[in-house]
Amino acid sequence: MSDFAAWTQACQARMESVLAAWLPPAHIAPQRLHEAMRYAVLGGGKRVRPLLAFAAGEVAGADPERVQHAAAAVELIHAYSLVHDDMPAMDDDALRRGKPTVHVEFDEATALLVGDALQSLAFDILASQPLAADAATQLNMVQVLAQAAGSRGMAGGQAIDLASVGKPLDLTELEFMHIHKTGALIRASVLLGAQCGTVTDATTAALDHYAKCIGLAFQVVDDVLDAEAPTATLGKTAGKDAANNKPTYVSLLGVARARELAQELRADAHAALDKLGAPAARLRQLADFVVERTF
Amino acid sequence: MSDFAAWTQACQARMESVLAAWLPPAHIAPQRLHEAMRYAVLGGGKRVRPLLAFAAGEVAGADPERVQHAAAAVELIHAYSLVHDDMPAMDDDALRRGKPTVHVEFDEATALLVGDALQSLAFDILASQPLAADAATQLNMVQVLAQAAGSRGMAGGQAIDLASVGKPLDLTELEFMHIHKTGALIRASVLLGAQCGTVTDATTAALDHYAKCIGLAFQVVDDVLDAEAPTATLGKTAGKDAANNKPTYVSLLGVARARELAQELRADAHAALDKLGAPAARLRQLADFVVERTF
Repeated sequence: MSDFAAWTQACQARMESVLAAWLPPAHIAPQRLHEAMRYAVLGGGKRVRPLLAFAAGEVAGADPERVQHAAAAVELIHAYSLVHDDMPAMDDDALRRGKPTVHVEFDEATALLVGDALQSLAFDILASQPLAADAATQLNMVQVLAQAAGSRGMAGGQAIDLASVGKPLDLTELEFMHIHKTGALIRASVLLGAQCGTVTDATTAALDHYAKCIGLAFQVVDDVLDAEAPTATLGKTAGKDAANNKPTYVSLLGVARARELAQELRADAHAALDKLGAPAARLRQLADFVVERTF
Repeated sequence: MSDFAAWTQACQARMESVLAAWLPPAHIAPQRLHEAMRYAVLGGGKRVRPLLAFAAGEVAGADPERVQHAAAAVELIHAYSLVHDDMPAMDDDALRRGKPTVHVEFDEATALLVGDALQSLAFDILASQPLAADAATQLNMVQVLAQAAGSRGMAGGQAIDLASVGKPLDLTELEFMHIHKTGALIRASVLLGAQCGTVTDATTAALDHYAKCIGLAFQVVDDVLDAEAPTATLGKTAGKDAANNKPTYVSLLGVARARELAQELRADAHAALDKLGAPAARLRQLADFVVERTF
């Protein structure tokens, strides 16, 4: 196993236990809600956002014992968005991470409440123990996550996505949507990981640019995989974008040019890290991972 | 107009402008989401939770310029819960505050995202400017609100409520549900208002007991009104609890005993304030208001 593969596995295992510890036990009332929250979060997922937080934490000299909680908060926001996104009123999807979606396995009302409660838990975690050098920085972390999740971040991106179904978006509009829908939370992952340690403004700016490139690359690759990979590999329903007549990088650019664009974004992401030296090694590897992944 | 009526009107007007300023303008993208967020929050509501926050702030000598932001955060959590609660997967209600509910006026997907984005905005507000004596206290305010909103608070209460439809709950189980469903956020309103100022542990304990009594009284009165008041007065569909075969204080105790219970809870709430003297005058009046209201 490569050093990077071992690191990602270790981070993923750590996140599984951190998330399992934060999620209320399924035997505590309301049991069905807690069972469904655990079902939605545990036992799957690439944990890309936590990996980014840990890698950014290395640049900032942050203690992983702190980063893991910030990473859990970001991952819970991501997990809640998937639960709500899969519901009949949104994407109406029955499969996620190779398992029935929450509203299929439980019911719609439970899925709604699972998402709501996971969002609350994310902010509970960010506020519940020292994660940064001082409380003022940590309060800023709360704000960073809240804005990334909100109507001018992820939730806003979902709204733009919904409004775009069947519409001929151009590349600028598609990018605008993705900067909100997935980019905002990926950016927050990197920034929160760094805020657990100490960084200069110049480093923050570099990390921010890196995160923007990675966020878009992630989406471009997602679109390529949705168009090309079989459902069994993805663990979610493939070919949904085309079936829903959703604009994607593939529908706008074709597969070949979309693949090229992902490579260009990777190069930009690497360039943003140029001045950060050895501590940014994991972030460089993550840029490669995001672009080269097949699931 | 009584002094208390003038105070509530002033607080309500202040909240309307504070909330209007925090909510993203409807001309900023995504416009439809922002329009729906403003529709869900502005132009109605008794603002009971903000009133409690302002009144608790008076006990703590808190600056109303600070309390108003904490109050806005709590009110946004309340507003998001109403939007999600009204959706077809939950209570399936078409009328709220005398207007069509968000999923009726807009659509279900928008209602889902409105609720999600309002919750994020609540935490954004709590973290965005100094509200307490120090940042550590303010971080604790984030935690208080997150826990009140989450699976062991309001969202958990909704789950217990859903699971109880058609079941013969006893009084203890009904109280357990309401302590979560409405009590947790009412408690948070009082605590957050106080945390904007300075209070002793003994005062916090007294406020906490007051809040618990008020929260239950609020629900008991809600059940009485649902059973007795016409829809036009309530601004929401009356008689829904009986129609849905939901256990209520009225179905368990009858109207007469439920009214008595509300009076007993008011007396308990007043007693909890005994040692707090004149600064607790508004909290006393609010206990009266909660029990005597007809809408």
